[in-house]
Amino acid sequence: MEIKELGEFKLIERLTKDIKPSNPSTITGVGDDAAVLRHSDKEILVSSHLFMEGIQFDLTYIDMKHLAYKCAMVAMTNIFAMNGRPCQIVVSIGVGKRIKVIDLDQFYEGLRTACSKWNVDIVGGDTTSSYTGLAINITCIGECGKEDIVYRKGAQPTDIICVSGDLGAAYMGLQILEREKAVYYQQVEEFNKKLKQAHANNDKKRIELLNNERAIIDNFQPDFVGKEYLIDRQLKPEAPGEVLEQLRNANISPTSMIDVSDGLASDLKHICKESNVGCRIYEDKIPIDYQTATTCEEFNMNLTTAALNGGEDYELLFTIPIGDHAKVASLKNIHQIGYITESRLGEYLIARDGNEFQLTAQGWVE
Amino acid sequence: MEIKELGEFKLIERLTKDIKPSNPSTITGVGDDAAVLRHSDKEILVSSHLFMEGIQFDLTYIDMKHLAYKCAMVAMTNIFAMNGRPCQIVVSIGVGKRIKVIDLDQFYEGLRTACSKWNVDIVGGDTTSSYTGLAINITCIGECGKEDIVYRKGAQPTDIICVSGDLGAAYMGLQILEREKAVYYQQVEEFNKKLKQAHANNDKKRIELLNNERAIIDNFQPDFVGKEYLIDRQLKPEAPGEVLEQLRNANISPTSMIDVSDGLASDLKHICKESNVGCRIYEDKIPIDYQTATTCEEFNMNLTTAALNGGEDYELLFTIPIGDHAKVASLKNIHQIGYITESRLGEYLIARDGNEFQLTAQGWVE
Repeated sequence: MEIKELGEFKLIERLTKDIKPSNPSTITGVGDDAAVLRHSDKEILVSSHLFMEGIQFDLTYIDMKHLAYKCAMVAMTNIFAMNGRPCQIVVSIGVGKRIKVIDLDQFYEGLRTACSKWNVDIVGGDTTSSYTGLAINITCIGECGKEDIVYRKGAQPTDIICVSGDLGAAYMGLQILEREKAVYYQQVEEFNKKLKQAHANNDKKRIELLNNERAIIDNFQPDFVGKEYLIDRQLKPEAPGEVLEQLRNANISPTSMIDVSDGLASDLKHICKESNVGCRIYEDKIPIDYQTATTCEEFNMNLTTAALNGGEDYELLFTIPIGDHAKVASLKNIHQIGYITESRLGEYLIARDGNEFQLTAQGWVE
Repeated sequence: MEIKELGEFKLIERLTKDIKPSNPSTITGVGDDAAVLRHSDKEILVSSHLFMEGIQFDLTYIDMKHLAYKCAMVAMTNIFAMNGRPCQIVVSIGVGKRIKVIDLDQFYEGLRTACSKWNVDIVGGDTTSSYTGLAINITCIGECGKEDIVYRKGAQPTDIICVSGDLGAAYMGLQILEREKAVYYQQVEEFNKKLKQAHANNDKKRIELLNNERAIIDNFQPDFVGKEYLIDRQLKPEAPGEVLEQLRNANISPTSMIDVSDGLASDLKHICKESNVGCRIYEDKIPIDYQTATTCEEFNMNLTTAALNGGEDYELLFTIPIGDHAKVASLKNIHQIGYITESRLGEYLIARDGNEFQLTAQGWVE
C-alpha cells in the first residue's frame, strides 16, 4: 500500500497502535504534542543521531527492519556510554515515494525489537515525506544516578584503557557487503550486454535462454560464508549494556567512557582531549576477531588500521584506576589495551616491533 | 571554506564553542556522548521535528539563519502547546556538498538567536553529511509542573474553543514566495532565450546589451510590498510562549491544547478525537489578518480554506471552561471561535450564512 492511500494521521495511528510504554518514567508516550516523562531522582541523559541514506546506510543491503534495529541500538549505545540506562526513544523519519506502508511497518517492527531488548519505550516522533532519500533521526533519553555518570573527561594518568568486545569487524563487514554489491551489479551489467547483443543479432533462441538465466540474477545470493560474524556486526550491532552490568557486578567504576563509533583512534583521542591526558595503546592488545583478521588479509588491508579507524564497533572504550587491574582481568570480553599518560606525552600506538605511531582521528569529512 | 577542509571534529568545535548553557536544568551540554539534564521536581516534555529540504523548506527563499530560527521555534512551540517551558534543544543536521562552513555558522547563529529568546540551551546534536538534500532534526526538551500539563485530551462539552493570533498568514506568505520564485525563473528563462537568439544571429551589440541586463536578473528583488506580515509569518514564526503567560496571569487553565501546525481544522480534529468530543466553530470568528484577506482575494483563493487548512501558524488552539468566557474576552490576541460539543454531534464549521460544513483534516500525504 502507498503511504498516500493511508494519509499521515492514519499512518501514524497504524505505526504506533501497538506501542505500550512500560517504563515507570514514561508518563505519556506517543499521541500528543510532546511526550511526558518523569525521572525524578535521576539525571536525564539525552543523545540524538541522524542517519542519512547513502551515508550511514545503503538500502541495497540492509532492510527496513534491520535498519531500524541498528539505528535504535546506536542511539542507545550513547546512553550506555555515559553509564546510563536508556529509557525512551523519539523517532523522526523522512520517507520518499519508494517507501511503502509495509516498509514502515517493518521499520517499526525493528524499532520495537530493539527497544524491547533494553526495555526502552518509543514515546514520540515525527513522520514526514522526503524528496530525496530516507532520513532517520533517533533521540534516546536515559537516566543515571548523579554520582554514577561517567563522562569523557575523567581519565587520569596511570589509568588503564579498556575496550569491550572486538574491533574492526563491522568495518570489514561493510567491505564484504560492498564487494558483493559490486559483484551483483557486474553480473547485471554483463547479462544486459549479452541480452542486447542477442537482440541485435535477432537470435531468438539465445534471447530465450538468457531470459531463463535472468532468474539466476534476480535471485543473486551474496557470498557471506565464513563472514557471518562480520555481516552481523555491520548490520545488527548490539548496544553494550551487558558490559556495564559486568562492571557494576565487579564493583569497577570507570573514570571515563565513550562508545567506539568513529573508531578506536578517534574515540580514544576524544577521551584524551576532554581529560587533558595522553595515552599509549599496544597494537598486540587490540581485540580482533578471527574473521576480521582473515578478511583483512583477503582484502589486502592493514588489520590494525581496520581496528583503529574502521568505526561502527559500538563497543565501550573506558578507563579504570590501575588498582582495578586484577578485577578487570577476570572479566570476560573486556580487554586492557594500554594506559593513560600525562598530556605532554601525546597519544601513541605501540606497534608489535616496539615502534610508536601517533594516533590520528578520522571523522566523516576527513 | 569547505566543510572537509575543517574536518568533522573541528567543525563541531567551531559551531559549539560559543554555546554556554544557562538553564539550571542543564548539567552538561554539548561535548559528551549525551547531554546531562536535571529536571528534578518537574515532568519532562520531549518533542522532535524533522525538516527535509524541498518539503518543509526551500533554500531558494529562506537563508540558513532564518531556517534555523524557524526550526527551533517550531520545536519549542510543541513544548508550549503542552503548557510547558522549553529548556533544551538537541540539533541534528545532515549537509550536502553545497553547504559551506559559513552556512553552518549562520545556521548556528539562527539557532542561538531563537534559543536566547526563550532561554533555551543547545545541549547536543549530530552533524553528518548527506548525499541528497539538507535534513534537520530538532528535539526540544521542556519542563512543566505535573498539575499544569495540558494535553489534547481534556476538552469537555460546553468548553469554549480559543485560538491565539491569526490564521492563514504563513500559508499566504508561502504563496507569495512561490509566486516570486516563479517570476524570477521566468525572467531567467526569457533572458536565456534572448541571449541564445542573439548568439545565433551573431548580433554582438545585442549580446553586449544583454550582458549588461544580466545584473538586473542577478539582483532580482521579489515584490513583497504590502505582504511583509505574511512573509514574516512564513519565514520567521514565533513560538507562542506569551500566550501562556497571558493565560497564567488571567488565571485561566486550558482544558486541552495543541499548536496549530497542520491547520486549524486538522488540529481541532486532533483535540476532538483525543478528548472524544465534537465541536462547532464559527467562520466569522476565525481571526484573519488584513494582509491574509487581501492576498487571498488577489490569488482568487478561499479565505476560510486558507485559515482552516493552511497550516504553519504556530499559534495555540485550546479549550477553556465556559465560566472563563469573560476572563478570556479581556485578553488581547486570543479569540473565541466556537465551542465543544458531545462527540455524536460531529465536528462542524458554521459558515457566515448559517450552513454547517464538516471539518476535514489535511496531513502531508492527503
